[in-house]
Amino acid sequence: MAPIKEVARSEEQALSLNYIRTILQRLEDTILFQLIERGQNAHNAVMYEPGAIPALKEKEGWERSWVEWFLKETESSHSKLRRWQAPDEYPFTDVKLLPAPILPPIEYPKVLYEPAIVNVNDKIYSHYKDHLVPALTKRFGQDSDDGEYGSAAVRDVDALAALSKRIHFGMFVSESKFRSDTPTFVDAIQKRDTKKLEALITKPEVEAALLVRLEGKAKVYGQDLNSSIPEKDLKIDPDVAVQLYRDFVIPLTKVVEVDYLLKRLDGLTDEHIQALKSGQVSK
Amino acid sequence: MAPIKEVARSEEQALSLNYIRTILQRLEDTILFQLIERGQNAHNAVMYEPGAIPALKEKEGWERSWVEWFLKETESSHSKLRRWQAPDEYPFTDVKLLPAPILPPIEYPKVLYEPAIVNVNDKIYSHYKDHLVPALTKRFGQDSDDGEYGSAAVRDVDALAALSKRIHFGMFVSESKFRSDTPTFVDAIQKRDTKKLEALITKPEVEAALLVRLEGKAKVYGQDLNSSIPEKDLKIDPDVAVQLYRDFVIPLTKVVEVDYLLKRLDGLTDEHIQALKSGQVSK
Repeated sequence: MAPIKEVARSEEQALSLNYIRTILQRLEDTILFQLIERGQNAHNAVMYEPGAIPALKEKEGWERSWVEWFLKETESSHSKLRRWQAPDEYPFTDVKLLPAPILPPIEYPKVLYEPAIVNVNDKIYSHYKDHLVPALTKRFGQDSDDGEYGSAAVRDVDALAALSKRIHFGMFVSESKFRSDTPTFVDAIQKRDTKKLEALITKPEVEAALLVRLEGKAKVYGQDLNSSIPEKDLKIDPDVAVQLYRDFVIPLTKVVEVDYLLKRLDGLTDEHIQALKSGQVSK
Repeated sequence: MAPIKEVARSEEQALSLNYIRTILQRLEDTILFQLIERGQNAHNAVMYEPGAIPALKEKEGWERSWVEWFLKETESSHSKLRRWQAPDEYPFTDVKLLPAPILPPIEYPKVLYEPAIVNVNDKIYSHYKDHLVPALTKRFGQDSDDGEYGSAAVRDVDALAALSKRIHFGMFVSESKFRSDTPTFVDAIQKRDTKKLEALITKPEVEAALLVRLEGKAKVYGQDLNSSIPEKDLKIDPDVAVQLYRDFVIPLTKVVEVDYLLKRLDGLTDEHIQALKSGQVSK
């Protein structure tokens, strides 16, 4: 058996806008699949309530919610497998609570500028529990509870990971665009011109096409093919998927993109910044 | 906040053939979703090779494969959440390696007859790695490796859990049918007449309808809606899904069903068996 082959994605590939688009479109499918699956369970509000499961506090000293505990447990296993060393994966759990990897580190190409990396998982978790889960499980009702906290939490963890990956991928978009038009970006960053930065990374026609595509995907993948009228009896409300992207995923990705850019020059020497500004170097 | 509501599925509900059918059909969707997702990664044969990751042996004393290690890690977290106390969930990992639940036990209705419970996860794992994963990833090739062992293993664990749940659900079918025609079953069990038992639990027309439905689901859910010809550019080969059920899931479920029935009288007194045989009691 050949020795384990390490990830060898090149810097060039990781920053190609074509490659990024492929990943983002594939993640739309994954996110929809996970949300459809989560929508098969009831709301189970107790899962998100800090302290609602006394045994977690008594036996594990855990004061937060069931789902947060489940995230910590899952992310701990994944930490041993060095998942959080990958440049496109960020944990929900405080890294201080996660164990060290048991595998030797992978030499990822240094694609992102480390001091600029942003983690918005707190915002993702809040939106997920406060808005998305209630919307996904609306047909069962706000007070619905099926007791299946294990299955539902597995879906939560998968869905949250997919959303997190999608939103943090914005940093690759930022870095890619920064390198392709460095002087313009350096100028806007130095002026703290967030409006300009937002305009530089935003393509309204791409966003509009995304929402149309997403609605179509929700209508296809959400069909309940066990029902006699699959195209009416949907397992996910397409509006919920569209709203999620329009009102949350796209704006928060933009926040990540702009915040990353605002920190993109932090810690660089004046000389280096000058070279970037004059277009002599692009990173 | 109301206290945590425990699962209170009644014995009657758990054994209703209507309820069982609903669960099984819903699991078809889950299985397809997970297999489609797994098919997005390469074959990554090294993930299934015992001892291929030296660090697992050195640091964790683990001599088996990466995926088996990942199963153990995941199933350990789930064990703390008492997942393996549920009558429809069985771990792939040796229970001796799993930690005790931290939550108080749930009082599940005693639906299955405990001494008859069967665990065929070894067979499921072998088929999965030797046949299913190569078939799902055929378009990438037998030697394909994308290095994404973390993501691929998460999909493996989810897909295996869904297949395991589906196949072990056969025990509920067996118990349900046993109770509805107890004297006939007791007679066949005492005669060790496996052909008869198989005939009693098999409905060829239901199996045929399942395969047709499954092919339809694979064609709908497998569409790559990022492609310009989604209905041709499928993310899963519908034949792979049909073969999986026809040649593996259905036959192995039958093995589980018959094995369960063959042990259904183990440990009962002669008096009790006589009462079952004469139709005085049904369990």
